Amino acid sequence: MSHNTFGHLFRVTTWGESHGPAIGAVVDGCPPGIRLTAEDIQADLDRRKPGQSRFVTQRREEDRVEILSGVFEDDRTDGPRTTGTPISLMIRNTDQRSKDYAAIRDAYRPGHADFTYDAKYGVRDYRGGGRSSARETASRVAAGAVARKVLDALVPGGVTIRAALVQIGSEAIDRLNWDWAQVDANPFFSPDAEAAVRFEEHLDRIRKAGSSVGAVLEVVAEGVPAGWGAPLYGKLDQDIAAALMSINAVKGVEIGDGFAAAELSGETNADEIRRGPDGRPQFLSNHAGGILGGIASGQPIVARLAVKPTSSILTARHTVDRHGAEVDLATKGRHDPCVGIRAVPVAEAMMAITLADHALRHRGQTGR
Amino acid sequence: MSHNTFGHLFRVTTWGESHGPAIGAVVDGCPPGIRLTAEDIQADLDRRKPGQSRFVTQRREEDRVEILSGVFEDDRTDGPRTTGTPISLMIRNTDQRSKDYAAIRDAYRPGHADFTYDAKYGVRDYRGGGRSSARETASRVAAGAVARKVLDALVPGGVTIRAALVQIGSEAIDRLNWDWAQVDANPFFSPDAEAAVRFEEHLDRIRKAGSSVGAVLEVVAEGVPAGWGAPLYGKLDQDIAAALMSINAVKGVEIGDGFAAAELSGETNADEIRRGPDGRPQFLSNHAGGILGGIASGQPIVARLAVKPTSSILTARHTVDRHGAEVDLATKGRHDPCVGIRAVPVAEAMMAITLADHALRHRGQTGR
Amino acid sequence: MSHNTFGHLFRVTTWGESHGPAIGAVVDGCPPGIRLTAEDIQADLDRRKPGQSRFVTQRREEDRVEILSGVFEDDRTDGPRTTGTPISLMIRNTDQRSKDYAAIRDAYRPGHADFTYDAKYGVRDYRGGGRSSARETASRVAAGAVARKVLDALVPGGVTIRAALVQIGSEAIDRLNWDWAQVDANPFFSPDAEAAVRFEEHLDRIRKAGSSVGAVLEVVAEGVPAGWGAPLYGKLDQDIAAALMSINAVKGVEIGDGFAAAELSGETNADEIRRGPDGRPQFLSNHAGGILGGIASGQPIVARLAVKPTSSILTARHTVDRHGAEVDLATKGRHDPCVGIRAVPVAEAMMAITLADHALRHRGQTGR
Amino acid sequence: MSHNTFGHLFRVTTWGESHGPAIGAVVDGCPPGIRLTAEDIQADLDRRKPGQSRFVTQRREEDRVEILSGVFEDDRTDGPRTTGTPISLMIRNTDQRSKDYAAIRDAYRPGHADFTYDAKYGVRDYRGGGRSSARETASRVAAGAVARKVLDALVPGGVTIRAALVQIGSEAIDRLNWDWAQVDANPFFSPDAEAAVRFEEHLDRIRKAGSSVGAVLEVVAEGVPAGWGAPLYGKLDQDIAAALMSINAVKGVEIGDGFAAAELSGETNADEIRRGPDGRPQFLSNHAGGILGGIASGQPIVARLAVKPTSSILTARHTVDRHGAEVDLATKGRHDPCVGIRAVPVAEAMMAITLADHALRHRGQTGR
Repeated sequence: MSHNTFGHLFRVTTWGESHGPAIGAVVDGCPPGIRLTAEDIQADLDRRKPGQSRFVTQRREEDRVEILSGVFEDDRTDGPRTTGTPISLMIRNTDQRSKDYAAIRDAYRPGHADFTYDAKYGVRDYRGGGRSSARETASRVAAGAVARKVLDALVPGGVTIRAALVQIGSEAIDRLNWDWAQVDANPFFSPDAEAAVRFEEHLDRIRKAGSSVGAVLEVVAEGVPAGWGAPLYGKLDQDIAAALMSINAVKGVEIGDGFAAAELSGETNADEIRRGPDGRPQFLSNHAGGILGGIASGQPIVARLAVKPTSSILTARHTVDRHGAEVDLATKGRHDPCVGIRAVPVAEAMMAITLADHALRHRGQTGR
Repeated sequence: MSHNTFGHLFRVTTWGESHGPAIGAVVDGCPPGIRLTAEDIQADLDRRKPGQSRFVTQRREEDRVEILSGVFEDDRTDGPRTTGTPISLMIRNTDQRSKDYAAIRDAYRPGHADFTYDAKYGVRDYRGGGRSSARETASRVAAGAVARKVLDALVPGGVTIRAALVQIGSEAIDRLNWDWAQVDANPFFSPDAEAAVRFEEHLDRIRKAGSSVGAVLEVVAEGVPAGWGAPLYGKLDQDIAAALMSINAVKGVEIGDGFAAAELSGETNADEIRRGPDGRPQFLSNHAGGILGGIASGQPIVARLAVKPTSSILTARHTVDRHGAEVDLATKGRHDPCVGIRAVPVAEAMMAITLADHALRHRGQTGR
Repeated sequence: MSHNTFGHLFRVTTWGESHGPAIGAVVDGCPPGIRLTAEDIQADLDRRKPGQSRFVTQRREEDRVEILSGVFEDDRTDGPRTTGTPISLMIRNTDQRSKDYAAIRDAYRPGHADFTYDAKYGVRDYRGGGRSSARETASRVAAGAVARKVLDALVPGGVTIRAALVQIGSEAIDRLNWDWAQVDANPFFSPDAEAAVRFEEHLDRIRKAGSSVGAVLEVVAEGVPAGWGAPLYGKLDQDIAAALMSINAVKGVEIGDGFAAAELSGETNADEIRRGPDGRPQFLSNHAGGILGGIASGQPIVARLAVKPTSSILTARHTVDRHGAEVDLATKGRHDPCVGIRAVPVAEAMMAITLADHALRHRGQTGR
Repeated sequence: MSHNTFGHLFRVTTWGESHGPAIGAVVDGCPPGIRLTAEDIQADLDRRKPGQSRFVTQRREEDRVEILSGVFEDDRTDGPRTTGTPISLMIRNTDQRSKDYAAIRDAYRPGHADFTYDAKYGVRDYRGGGRSSARETASRVAAGAVARKVLDALVPGGVTIRAALVQIGSEAIDRLNWDWAQVDANPFFSPDAEAAVRFEEHLDRIRKAGSSVGAVLEVVAEGVPAGWGAPLYGKLDQDIAAALMSINAVKGVEIGDGFAAAELSGETNADEIRRGPDGRPQFLSNHAGGILGGIASGQPIVARLAVKPTSSILTARHTVDRHGAEVDLATKGRHDPCVGIRAVPVAEAMMAITLADHALRHRGQTGR
């Protein structure tokens, strides 16, 4: 079972609420002997950190990660390495303004999980969304940094996992302009520098209106060896879909051509194969997004995810409170006008966690 | 772990290859005391059965299911009931024409899992796709029929799960014409009778050309109580995404507005709530598709899935064989021009299995 | 979750009732490329088969196993091999005499699971104990035969798993007489030929009195590489304890010196180590039974299990029926006077399954 | 998979090494609405705490537990309650004397897990045994305190779980003197006050000799409703055996009469049943230890476990180091002469965790 754990052999269990003392993750199943320091993890966390531009929440969190277990530095070695035991990661919460939330203690914010948490549990930590807050994704990013280390240790040549934001509202990138180097050069993780300019205008308008907007992200993993994944209920694409759909606000996931494949003919969709220069099969296209029958083909794995608009907006919406009274509610507090932006490093992290898990599963599945 | 098992408390393990002696499923975790006969399951199987129109594979399978365990009829009772022990379901394969496949014993059919199975396992049952054949989905439909029984036993008023085909290639239904009664009245499971006429023309053209085409399906579950599901890695939408993505040829999944949500504003997307006639919260729209924060809201659960075109087509495509030789391959044998059609009862089954699992998990999660 | 499944990467799911049409197992996670025929499995099944001496139940079952999936014979290869997909095994029930059980349809046989099944499920298949019958152990033995194949494929030199019966009632073997070659030379699986004579007298007396008696078994696995197992909740001894305790009628499990270790001093108990002829550490004793900290040390793994006396006896015992009426019940039907005897191949099978699972887990745990 | 997690619906994941900054546990699956404070947990931790008598390790740990997530105090309610989200528990390590361990940095202490950890992982945190230290059991006790709360919330009348030490070396209690009130009145958790006197003499002699000795513990759970547990691989006794065998230094586990059952006749062993004053079945004896067919009978659940002598002793023993050199090693540092004593609250905790898990699983298994 997996209420709060993701993965089977590389397992990430996260804990913590938005306004509790801390959040964290326990990463179990990390192989031994991998160099790991807090700085390795911090780099990924800093990309996700709030407050870095006017387009994301102004909550100021240091997001300093502590490693509490699972690494050991022998004085005769070259730095801390994993030991094969659980890696406990903790991030203190420092900028909680819980009083901001008194108004919504009883009322169900439309689009949020307030009503459903109450329906399930009969109780909820309403401060900042509690457990359902996007703050939990910091734990994912921290665990994802460990997963990247695992992949680099297990795969000669390494696995490169990168995500980008390809659409905000109705504004999409031009794929001909795709340049990975641009992604970290603008506040939107846009791979298209020109689109970033349009994104800025679009999002400034939305932000000033106190509104919000959705987004589409793309995640690409290069270097995944053919063979990872497993029929029929341990499919790699099934697990990627689950990983991405588990991110807050995600409403759709597709692999390769995804929904567009519905309009293709069999002739177009079937990625033809020729003998490559190394004698190995070489695919002539990648409509499949790197996965056939649930198993990696060796091509880049390509996934996209749709993020809904932030539900916290300044315009009042109709709702009810837990006593059944009708109220109108405008959400105050500090929020992201487009929560899809900060989802970029989170999507990378979830892809990394899924792949690290499958890297280890492949060994167990094949006995090799 | 879950190579061939889906679910946690209601668990379905399938086994069998397209051209072996039989296929089947073991359904573990079915609560006791539920009436269940082979006829109950047969009805669902018959909807998926091949050979029922010219638009699906002409393979002729009786698809008779046998219940080998897990039900018991006391002579003082009113028919067989589940006992809480594993329900073993078996369907004999009767119309295997394995010689059809000799030509592709070594060659990797583009779009199929031939190459990836070999990359993973170094061996594969090439007859009819072996384990990766859509034939396995008969086991899913059989298990899904049991899941429906479980849902009806656990939920007062029952849970209604229905799927429909809403797009074939570039032809889509008109949602204003949606009529569930039409779905079983045409060979496409189309809820729009007018669209069914267009589908027929479109697919006849494709079939005669020896080509194939993709499709989009929609699955709707009504009657799911608010509260099923769980944050953060046991989300109901995460599990639905995994369930649907595990179906052969599926390349995309969305919940509620899905990818369209990326273009919405927060004002539009947030489903407003008012006090209903029964005093309970009543949603004024369902952009969320019935799930908020991974937990059911009590609204209908709405999911869509994209199915790629059948990879088996008459036009030759470039490929290589396992020895590295380049060949051109046209697939013979009996195939579906649009595998999305027969995916309709499979999508219903996977939704039913996912919901039955969550129905039981909800009890364990809340202690109620 | 694991109602009817044992193992994580090498997973065995069993199904079937004593008096249903068949019993079986689905073995998932078997690595590909391993030679496997029904005959390989049959040899193990025949050792467990009822009716082979007057000391075991006279039920006559052919116990012919069918392999329904998961193996494939390419016409260019040397026989059927596993493909990495689930192996479905089925054994038809042929000698059910269900009318024998009419008398205990409502009454709870003392020592049996009748009352507890009713308490849990409110319904039970009372014919021959239904799911709780020792008949289910045939499925374990069949799956165990596959597990042995896996171990031999994964471990150079192979893993040898043997069990013996070391005590019946108050009669115990003399360990100085231990000779593995004797085990299959007497109807008790006794490694001590002299003790077998005493066992025969003892058990004849018990059998004629319509009584029954308990037993102690020992299972030894040789060739297990140092390193299998995992702290702290995936311990090898923890999983062996679970595997053996899951066998019908088992009430105790110990590893190495087991309960006798309570009386040892630290000096005696600590297995000292010296440098072996190959330069590797060599243990001078094996009080630990081959496991330290939950991880195999490379020494033989030694486990013992206690089996309670068969609860089905001719002497009437007090009980009640499901309506609360007090009755006295003598069990008729065909039963084992010492169910511990036929547990010997079952204990081997459970050890094999546990070790095959850990062999695969070790790869996933270490990334090697 | 379960390297460092125990349980399925009530799941405990522990992390931390003996000489790292902290140890802890994440308790996932705790139902909502249960009152829980750090003080509730502290009471159980204090019973396990080192340094409380001369018979246990002199390491001085405050063992103060912090609750970092999963509870919430609404200002309108009567104290903190669980919310259904993961409960993160942390205990800081304060009295590490890591320099004590420099001598055993390379040498494998006989009886310890040093060699096997190295064999598995190729690296280990040798300070105080690292992850294999008994210090980890503090996390178990903390999680066990939460499990007790869950049981009390779910079972009307509550479940009482108590353990006692019934044997130290060759000295055993007299069961006729059993008095639960004595258990916390002597430093041995002995239920027999007279035996406690003998234990004291015996252990003083052992302690002064720098030796150690093993022990036998008994755990009893009263109030468990008939029906918990599940055939055939989710048996309650199977899970109890796994839970107890996972505790450091445990080498044997038995349920009810355990190994003594091997010597019983079927007549004696079968617990007879009569109609109780409340009309419900009433057992006349409890040889089964409260479990039949893997399912609780409603009688007290009785388990015993054997703990080997502490391997850390002052007398030098033969061993080798990781370079293959032969050395003789006497363990210094602060240790327990009988590690079985402090295992008493740990055994209670593992029983509580197992039962809380089964309490929740029962709901999912039966749909009730």
